[in-house]
Amino acid sequence: MRAIFIAVGSEMLDLDRVDTNSGYVARRLRQKGILTDMKVVVGDHMDNLSWIVKKACQRAQLVVLSGGLGPTEDDITREAVATALKKELVFREEIVAGLRELFRSRGQAMPEINARQAFVIEGAEVLANPVGTAPGLYCEAGGCKVLLLPGPPNEMQPVFEAAFEKFIAPAANYHIYSRTFKLTGIGESDADSRIADIYRKYRNPVTTILASPGIIEIHLLGRSKDSDEEARRLTDELAGKVRERLKDFIFAEGDAGLPEVVIAMLKERGLTLAVAESCTGGGLGDQVTSVPGSSEVFLGGVIAYANSVKNGLLGVREETLKRHGAVSEATAAEMAAVARRLCGADIGLSVTGIAGPEGGSDKKPVGLVYMHLSAANHERGMRQIFSGSREVIKRRSAFYALNLVREYLNQLAADGGRQTADGKKQADISDK
Amino acid sequence: MRAIFIAVGSEMLDLDRVDTNSGYVARRLRQKGILTDMKVVVGDHMDNLSWIVKKACQRAQLVVLSGGLGPTEDDITREAVATALKKELVFREEIVAGLRELFRSRGQAMPEINARQAFVIEGAEVLANPVGTAPGLYCEAGGCKVLLLPGPPNEMQPVFEAAFEKFIAPAANYHIYSRTFKLTGIGESDADSRIADIYRKYRNPVTTILASPGIIEIHLLGRSKDSDEEARRLTDELAGKVRERLKDFIFAEGDAGLPEVVIAMLKERGLTLAVAESCTGGGLGDQVTSVPGSSEVFLGGVIAYANSVKNGLLGVREETLKRHGAVSEATAAEMAAVARRLCGADIGLSVTGIAGPEGGSDKKPVGLVYMHLSAANHERGMRQIFSGSREVIKRRSAFYALNLVREYLNQLAADGGRQTADGKKQADISDK
Repeated sequence: MRAIFIAVGSEMLDLDRVDTNSGYVARRLRQKGILTDMKVVVGDHMDNLSWIVKKACQRAQLVVLSGGLGPTEDDITREAVATALKKELVFREEIVAGLRELFRSRGQAMPEINARQAFVIEGAEVLANPVGTAPGLYCEAGGCKVLLLPGPPNEMQPVFEAAFEKFIAPAANYHIYSRTFKLTGIGESDADSRIADIYRKYRNPVTTILASPGIIEIHLLGRSKDSDEEARRLTDELAGKVRERLKDFIFAEGDAGLPEVVIAMLKERGLTLAVAESCTGGGLGDQVTSVPGSSEVFLGGVIAYANSVKNGLLGVREETLKRHGAVSEATAAEMAAVARRLCGADIGLSVTGIAGPEGGSDKKPVGLVYMHLSAANHERGMRQIFSGSREVIKRRSAFYALNLVREYLNQLAADGGRQTADGKKQADISDK
Repeated sequence: MRAIFIAVGSEMLDLDRVDTNSGYVARRLRQKGILTDMKVVVGDHMDNLSWIVKKACQRAQLVVLSGGLGPTEDDITREAVATALKKELVFREEIVAGLRELFRSRGQAMPEINARQAFVIEGAEVLANPVGTAPGLYCEAGGCKVLLLPGPPNEMQPVFEAAFEKFIAPAANYHIYSRTFKLTGIGESDADSRIADIYRKYRNPVTTILASPGIIEIHLLGRSKDSDEEARRLTDELAGKVRERLKDFIFAEGDAGLPEVVIAMLKERGLTLAVAESCTGGGLGDQVTSVPGSSEVFLGGVIAYANSVKNGLLGVREETLKRHGAVSEATAAEMAAVARRLCGADIGLSVTGIAGPEGGSDKKPVGLVYMHLSAANHERGMRQIFSGSREVIKRRSAFYALNLVREYLNQLAADGGRQTADGKKQADISDK
């Protein structure tokens, strides 16, 4: 079964309001092996909407619409779908009675305009809306299932779930299993070239590689006509091979972001973090503090944007700045060490670089960034030349710096030791 | 002229990657009075894509596609469009020559796979891509203009702009004039209620109010069949009334963001800024340093997330923290003053609050945020209770804090004086 999703509402065309219903519905359908071929956003316009519904019903076996079921004149989805399917709209007295009752329970009289919501496509099943006034509708026409859902996500979801359970899932013909790896510290084409020879052999699972600044995601989606177990087996087989090749870069499997992963690792070890930021300008701390509960392990730090702050407040030696420059391995190392000491943290993490678009030179081009991690008995620096816009360079720098923390904590774990705040190592003999 | 936009890429169907190109293109088209009837997202699938292109070309006068012009086998847009329009693909040697040259300039050999990008729909105009390897294409078929753009937004935009200028704008049949006000320090419904009685009287210009965390945008779009002047006159008439009601909150007209506006104002006055951030965790500095050239006026500051850092590194008095708490007017005031002094800045700006979701109490609920600006002869504090997620509260806090700087600099300007670093005022008699 193939699906087309149609989001109805001019605000998504004219005002860049993003339709989120399509993602929800596509994800749920995919869990039953029903793939969405297309998503359409169309305004509250009778001709356009009935045109696309008609075409979609000729093409797909399932057409899901959301929006345009309200009581006002703008709400034309019922009528447009009826037109497309060459069906009549019939008035259902019991819907009006239900609406009157709903309004009375809220201590209000039903505005007469809401009676429009009692018009139903002939032959359609009415789907109760437990949250709002717009009921959903389900009908079939020429071998195509058509589902009309209310637009607000909190109303759409329960109505969709009821219809999914009753009409859609029983007709689904695939079992699906998906896995996602998240990577950092590696670029998209590098990641791709390391696994292309493996995943290209498989048409099932389907492999998708996605890049955003500093983060690569690898999605594997396996499907089976027979069973969940078969879909899982196929996916796990490929996932194992992909993981083996890329394990040094994988920081999470599933939905967790890099800051979440690093904060969780710090909590587990009881270690604290401080930062010293130059070119990220606060963006590293902003990422870290995006995680609820980060205050347990993140102490703070210094935004040392101007050299006067690097030297003054932060206390990087003037000699270091003079001899090596603000963007240098030596400055990064000192920034991290001093931030750690000033904040009394276990780990100091620094970033200094040239985010551009101005300020680069032949020797130190835009995109050159030094990151450094300083901890008891451990120093680790990294030099990168990032490409991209100012925002992208800042973002990549923050993620690569966080990855230094992840690698360090992984290494601690591999060493089997536990790093304590005062720098002593002790065997981790706890049972946790 | 009516348009349909088609975004090509399975990742937008299967992985909830959001297409942002459609918004950009729709906005630019709207500026010439070309309305987008539909946006479609379709996977990298030959039959589905050529089907929707064919239907779209029957319906609209302009069809814009983005994505699927890369060199790999997944990239099928050229071929699918050729099929839909019943045209041949022809090989253009000069495109390959250009690609070889591009790779050579990067010190690389062109992978042979990139030769696929030299196939062109017969009769199509090739649109140079100044950023990447995928050229755009423009052709006409049966009265419909068809534009193929690369998928990455930074490649899409310059290619679109060239085609827009050459082929699309000259054929537009409306004159359009738009104005945008950007506001901060006010919520969406408050802004709406202050101007609803005015803008509801006008069907032309169309008024749209958009909210994002901390920022409200009011878009006015006037159109005329006759002339640019008429469209402008209509828009200016309404804009004048809107501005009058909301002038205290408007920080920019047009595209500039609040950080850009504040940095420009600081530069103009030759004043420097330092920050002390608690709940924003670096997000305020991150916003400030998103502006190229911000290093001229932004010195840096302290991320004082833990109380130990507020008291230790930053130097907020223990007594203040004990008596008033970390989230208090007194702590915010001291944070700003100390940040200013430690960094040697003209203006100190602080944020301290509870971003949630945990950590709130009856007296100090989640969303409670204190912001403070400290300058020579000027102290200004602000208390807000923001609603929304952790991310939204952080973002709103950063923008409201920046707005304190804007208001302060406006006030300086209104006073006709020039604030200098040592706190003296002098009449601004320079001719700059």
